[in-house]
Amino acid sequence: MQRFFIWVEYDGRPFLGWQRQKEGLSVQGVLENAIAQFDPRSGDQREILVYGSGRTDAGVHGIGQVAHVDIMRPMTAKKLFGALNHLSLPHPVTVTKVVEVDPDSHARFHAVQRHYVYQILNRRANPTFESGLVWHVKGKLDIDKMQEAANLLIGTHDFTTFRHAHCQGKTPIKTLDYLNVSEENDRVYIHTGARSFLHHQVRSMTGCLVQVGLGRWTVDDFRAARDAKDRQALIMNAPPDGLYFKAIDFADGIIPNPSDNSYPE
Amino acid sequence: MQRFFIWVEYDGRPFLGWQRQKEGLSVQGVLENAIAQFDPRSGDQREILVYGSGRTDAGVHGIGQVAHVDIMRPMTAKKLFGALNHLSLPHPVTVTKVVEVDPDSHARFHAVQRHYVYQILNRRANPTFESGLVWHVKGKLDIDKMQEAANLLIGTHDFTTFRHAHCQGKTPIKTLDYLNVSEENDRVYIHTGARSFLHHQVRSMTGCLVQVGLGRWTVDDFRAARDAKDRQALIMNAPPDGLYFKAIDFADGIIPNPSDNSYPE
Repeated sequence: MQRFFIWVEYDGRPFLGWQRQKEGLSVQGVLENAIAQFDPRSGDQREILVYGSGRTDAGVHGIGQVAHVDIMRPMTAKKLFGALNHLSLPHPVTVTKVVEVDPDSHARFHAVQRHYVYQILNRRANPTFESGLVWHVKGKLDIDKMQEAANLLIGTHDFTTFRHAHCQGKTPIKTLDYLNVSEENDRVYIHTGARSFLHHQVRSMTGCLVQVGLGRWTVDDFRAARDAKDRQALIMNAPPDGLYFKAIDFADGIIPNPSDNSYPE
Repeated sequence: MQRFFIWVEYDGRPFLGWQRQKEGLSVQGVLENAIAQFDPRSGDQREILVYGSGRTDAGVHGIGQVAHVDIMRPMTAKKLFGALNHLSLPHPVTVTKVVEVDPDSHARFHAVQRHYVYQILNRRANPTFESGLVWHVKGKLDIDKMQEAANLLIGTHDFTTFRHAHCQGKTPIKTLDYLNVSEENDRVYIHTGARSFLHHQVRSMTGCLVQVGLGRWTVDDFRAARDAKDRQALIMNAPPDGLYFKAIDFADGIIPNPSDNSYPE
């Protein structure tokens, strides 16, 4: 058995989410169906073949998701790269890199930081190229005010307000390493990173930041919502459309550098 | 009669091009059909209602195309913006700005510089989000060599090599103001600007620059192709997929600043 880390890009629009589901299309399912075609194995059909660093919800996109996969027949990274990309067609799932790792390396447990970016189209006119790939906010956003509010979430806080009601995380206390609001022409980007996030945390933080940006909430309202530690204090959850799982950092040594078996090199 | 400049964004994938054509979808046609619904006029059906600063071929995209339109019934910029965007649906054509101008202002004749960007996805893996919106080049491009070759086209030259066989321009002598090759992660961008371009010029320049970037041509080969002043010396034309008509500069005073009647303000 060989274990590989695969870097995965996906357009979330047609999917029920990352995680395999009985009924409907998932990114994990597309990749597992691909693997089953060249590396069939007996036994439990529900066995997890592709283990992601994190799950994403329906409509959320991936540009740097990382998963580990175990392959039974001897395999080069180059062959795995070709096979996964070929057999995932026509679904919008692309493997951008494959690296063989130690069989103990784990895409989820050895991840030490996760990075997301949320993309907003901030203008009057509808998106032309990116329907479902951005959140379209028509009113002009005040970026400085959004950053002022964002600063209130950096560091260690109780994020209960920004957590899905059904979130299964053990604790609402999380440490946010950064939360940066920037703009470029008619785009507003919210970049954030942490060891881990609660379910819906990035979308909930984004929804509230946008309310500040639109002037519907003051920075003090934002602070009060945070301090309420109550999901009811949330003014809005941003749609999945603009959310991208961007990158994952792993503990030192988990990704061999250089690896004997990686593609592209 | 009022004349307006409209800024138009379009996804070129479903279109035969900018220019109205008898059979098939065009960007101009979508906009003219929209106008006909709220500003009908008698007479010649072939009358041009939407006059673009430049034409684009099938599959080429617009992000800052500008056209002028004449409207017979009294109209505010805001109403025109709303009507054009509403009545262009479901086609991927978006009007991002509307400004009332002097009735003598002409989107084509008063344009003094046109800007294009060509976008390349430079990696092994296929595009995920942008099939038809980028040129996918798998081999690693040498950006420095491409810029070295690009510098040979800046200034005034005979661009016959880089000109479509059926180009109707009066002269192949053009002045290229800039031609910049840059990269950001797995994207390579070629930005270029000139008063005017020959038919296929940007795609032909891009195709040859990519051959240099891949090492199939030396910079000297590139220079020889330019100096041949012969379409047969062209090694390849880049596909339309990655080409975007980005912006147009107009002569001073053509776009009133501020305008009494513009939207968004």
